Amino acid sequence: MTVASTPTAILLISCPDQPGIVHNTTGLIVDHGGNIVHLDQHVDTETNVLFMRIEWTLEKFTITRNDLLKALTPIVDRFQMRADLEFSDTLPRTAIFVSKESHCLYDLLSRHESGELLIDISLIVSNHTILKPIADRFQIPFHHFPITPENKAQQESAEIELLQNNDIDTVVLARYMQILGHHLIDAYPNKIINIHHSFLPAFPGARPYHSAHARGVKIIGATSHYVTEDLDEGPIIAQDVIHVSHRDSVKDLIRRGKDLEKIVLARALWAHSQRRVLVYDNKTIVFR
Amino acid sequence: MTVASTPTAILLISCPDQPGIVHNTTGLIVDHGGNIVHLDQHVDTETNVLFMRIEWTLEKFTITRNDLLKALTPIVDRFQMRADLEFSDTLPRTAIFVSKESHCLYDLLSRHESGELLIDISLIVSNHTILKPIADRFQIPFHHFPITPENKAQQESAEIELLQNNDIDTVVLARYMQILGHHLIDAYPNKIINIHHSFLPAFPGARPYHSAHARGVKIIGATSHYVTEDLDEGPIIAQDVIHVSHRDSVKDLIRRGKDLEKIVLARALWAHSQRRVLVYDNKTIVFR
Amino acid sequence: MTVASTPTAILLISCPDQPGIVHNTTGLIVDHGGNIVHLDQHVDTETNVLFMRIEWTLEKFTITRNDLLKALTPIVDRFQMRADLEFSDTLPRTAIFVSKESHCLYDLLSRHESGELLIDISLIVSNHTILKPIADRFQIPFHHFPITPENKAQQESAEIELLQNNDIDTVVLARYMQILGHHLIDAYPNKIINIHHSFLPAFPGARPYHSAHARGVKIIGATSHYVTEDLDEGPIIAQDVIHVSHRDSVKDLIRRGKDLEKIVLARALWAHSQRRVLVYDNKTIVFR
Amino acid sequence: MTVASTPTAILLISCPDQPGIVHNTTGLIVDHGGNIVHLDQHVDTETNVLFMRIEWTLEKFTITRNDLLKALTPIVDRFQMRADLEFSDTLPRTAIFVSKESHCLYDLLSRHESGELLIDISLIVSNHTILKPIADRFQIPFHHFPITPENKAQQESAEIELLQNNDIDTVVLARYMQILGHHLIDAYPNKIINIHHSFLPAFPGARPYHSAHARGVKIIGATSHYVTEDLDEGPIIAQDVIHVSHRDSVKDLIRRGKDLEKIVLARALWAHSQRRVLVYDNKTIVFR
Repeated sequence: MTVASTPTAILLISCPDQPGIVHNTTGLIVDHGGNIVHLDQHVDTETNVLFMRIEWTLEKFTITRNDLLKALTPIVDRFQMRADLEFSDTLPRTAIFVSKESHCLYDLLSRHESGELLIDISLIVSNHTILKPIADRFQIPFHHFPITPENKAQQESAEIELLQNNDIDTVVLARYMQILGHHLIDAYPNKIINIHHSFLPAFPGARPYHSAHARGVKIIGATSHYVTEDLDEGPIIAQDVIHVSHRDSVKDLIRRGKDLEKIVLARALWAHSQRRVLVYDNKTIVFR
Repeated sequence: MTVASTPTAILLISCPDQPGIVHNTTGLIVDHGGNIVHLDQHVDTETNVLFMRIEWTLEKFTITRNDLLKALTPIVDRFQMRADLEFSDTLPRTAIFVSKESHCLYDLLSRHESGELLIDISLIVSNHTILKPIADRFQIPFHHFPITPENKAQQESAEIELLQNNDIDTVVLARYMQILGHHLIDAYPNKIINIHHSFLPAFPGARPYHSAHARGVKIIGATSHYVTEDLDEGPIIAQDVIHVSHRDSVKDLIRRGKDLEKIVLARALWAHSQRRVLVYDNKTIVFR
Repeated sequence: MTVASTPTAILLISCPDQPGIVHNTTGLIVDHGGNIVHLDQHVDTETNVLFMRIEWTLEKFTITRNDLLKALTPIVDRFQMRADLEFSDTLPRTAIFVSKESHCLYDLLSRHESGELLIDISLIVSNHTILKPIADRFQIPFHHFPITPENKAQQESAEIELLQNNDIDTVVLARYMQILGHHLIDAYPNKIINIHHSFLPAFPGARPYHSAHARGVKIIGATSHYVTEDLDEGPIIAQDVIHVSHRDSVKDLIRRGKDLEKIVLARALWAHSQRRVLVYDNKTIVFR
Repeated sequence: MTVASTPTAILLISCPDQPGIVHNTTGLIVDHGGNIVHLDQHVDTETNVLFMRIEWTLEKFTITRNDLLKALTPIVDRFQMRADLEFSDTLPRTAIFVSKESHCLYDLLSRHESGELLIDISLIVSNHTILKPIADRFQIPFHHFPITPENKAQQESAEIELLQNNDIDTVVLARYMQILGHHLIDAYPNKIINIHHSFLPAFPGARPYHSAHARGVKIIGATSHYVTEDLDEGPIIAQDVIHVSHRDSVKDLIRRGKDLEKIVLARALWAHSQRRVLVYDNKTIVFR
């Protein structure tokens, strides 16, 4: 899980499995002076699809960043690859959406400040103003978009415009208590990360802790996933749980669950920011 | 979680909460020479119901077992208690139902043999004969009831008769792959323990590992619960999970899930056999 | 684990076990109009010591706070109890000690701000100034005590004076990288909570993640404990672990371990602040 | 974590990292008709050592098993590889050593019987006769070697002879309560798997549950490791823990810990049997 301290190129590919993929891809890198610092591959034997993440240092690599995609084209074409090329020193420009709960926001901001989370937190969006003081403390621009049933479509258009004007490529819903409209979802496919406060697919939708308490479960969980148009049904990136008992009231579940929420969201965002997540067939490959 | 080595009486009660319950109940025990070795109580503040488990030694207790229920009557009546009185040296007479999978059966039999599981395994019931050799090895009577859609009702009547003739009071479904009919369920309310191979309420019904794989979850689980007429919706006694990844095929989930199944079922049965489980409102209180 | 919303009295007792303790203590409470909202007791059968936590509402309780200790005296004397009496609306006055790492500090401050952590964070002490801006953001007084081998004893005396002048009763070492002197430890027995970044007793002392990596363990952990004069050997309040693999470098362990550190420290402090922790024989009873 | 159903070759290598290793090794396989079903590599950036596991199908592979090592020689030499070549249909011939506790033995035998554990359990060795009936039930040869301080060296020589006569290549210490002598350890380097009932390096040696109870830890664990001459200090293959509380007596820890012991031992043995474990520098790489 090494994070290289010198700039690296990261290639995420998926393609029909056949002999020669690893061999040819590594060949191109090695032949041009790249030193591979991470290689992980996985073959889904049911669908016969190969997934791979390769990361290599650029120090002595003789292909320039601008020419790299072109240089990869023959391999991409030959193996019918879906390929994403990223560079480790290009930080994802990130917008955080929040409502009234502060725990995930504080957690992300403090991770960011300490240098643990290598993203560029460009702005914070909220349908309330209650968390604006936190944004101010961390000197992150805060944008208030109050949402009503009437203005929702219009406000989302304004939000999309804001995101695009700021070159945002990753949106984090840090306990944002609004269902996104499809325009926003369509604009950021597999780029909007949500934290849901249950171990999905159990307890989707509103008030999962109340439902968990009513059902009398002995574990509660949190799930971070990419947002799709099917509510709480997008590709799962990370999940975790804790044990609970009859002693835990709904209030206890809410309190104890917050720890899960912030940890699981941060794990998912970390993997995303490190370009370790590949989405396929509404599931994720999370390379380690 | 001490298990007394000398015979004890165990009183499980639930009643509307009001002042004096603990005080009066412990008073009766103490005044007659009982030494309390375990007391745990819980008040559900939503419903205002108190739950309590008291266990005390009988060595110097001056009320005989036969007279004890009568002696408790004034307190039971005064506080409108639902009360169960058990004695630690009366082992639950248990029937294990199995189909073709051996892992839970072996696990229960080996725990029983080593003295960890204080139950009396009176007989094994199966709709197949494949596990009969295991029953034979452990010298437990094995009863074969092949089930077809046509004979199901009739076979269950025969099973009920068998259970009653053997004074069975606890039924364990150790990966028994048949849905029980309501006659059998009604005959053993909160006495039939099932192990389901998912973290309920996610993935109820058939083939949960396949569903989990299709959904791309990052954890899988197992749930042990009392059987009610609503399939996989009875009161949950124990649950646990493990982390999985995209590397895990359905086969891997099945293999790895077996560990959860046997551990979670054994935990639930242990708590049940120690009379640590109280059912209320389709939920359990599991006293520790 | 209910937290009462109306003021309560909390009694923590330990004493030689004998019949009548629960009966008599609950009697006094019930007879004077107290409504017990939490009662948990535990008997250590090896040492024959009983531990109990009782919490009851004061609304209709007819003994005043001032007279309560006196009213309890006959019971305390009769059963040779060590008894602590607390009131839920008296928040522990807390000082947080930090060095350079911000994650635990941010975590505690954000929990405090959201009302989850019912303590009074009176001041922050540090041997560095690097975290002062965080204290400023949350408007908590920050006191800088640079420590050198030469000035250590003197600085600690000044710290003790500061703590006493501020009526501090709980000290939290939130990754404070100095070993406390015995004067400070003696002044706050079982009142100084540390977070150590390993699952003690493994890897005490400095650089536990490096040691864990060198040993090749497959789990790492964190431990929160009360500070005693024996380094990292005080009574353990909370512990947790996560799974790691050969993929995790020392840097990964440090990054991933931070999540454990802040969660485990917060759990320990929450239990302490709710007066759920009783220390006995260098171990803790943590009532749930 | 796919387990191929058709025979495969498995190559485990470690060597100084340099460009071209993956490229050249996969080249040899692909050029001769091998289809790679698993490839996982890891670079230890501190020591600059590369570790890799490659598994490929033999169906259309044009190099015979006998010629394969020779065919690999140029690559092995060029990159100074330490290389192990195994075939998936050659099951590790395994001896299980036990003393008096049955839980791990039953667990391994039932996993073996159900086909989950792809090993050949050739024989059982014990310093007691108490578990002989279990061996008999599963029709595994049982060998009794009573051990006294006087006869220990001699008995181990006889054991080594027995193991060698039976072509044993893997030894499992399934709660075998004797410290092995160095002759036996030397004869099976990284081939003897032990289960220790604590989360090492905490509580090595005898009676770890008693030590854990005395220390008041809030988690207990189990560790499976290869045996070296330093007691409980060999390379760790798998570890897991459970949460415990003040409620758990030593007896409870022993009972609850058994579940950990059998699960963790089985996980380690499964990985070993699948040739997923590489030992380096007293640590393990466990490929997933």
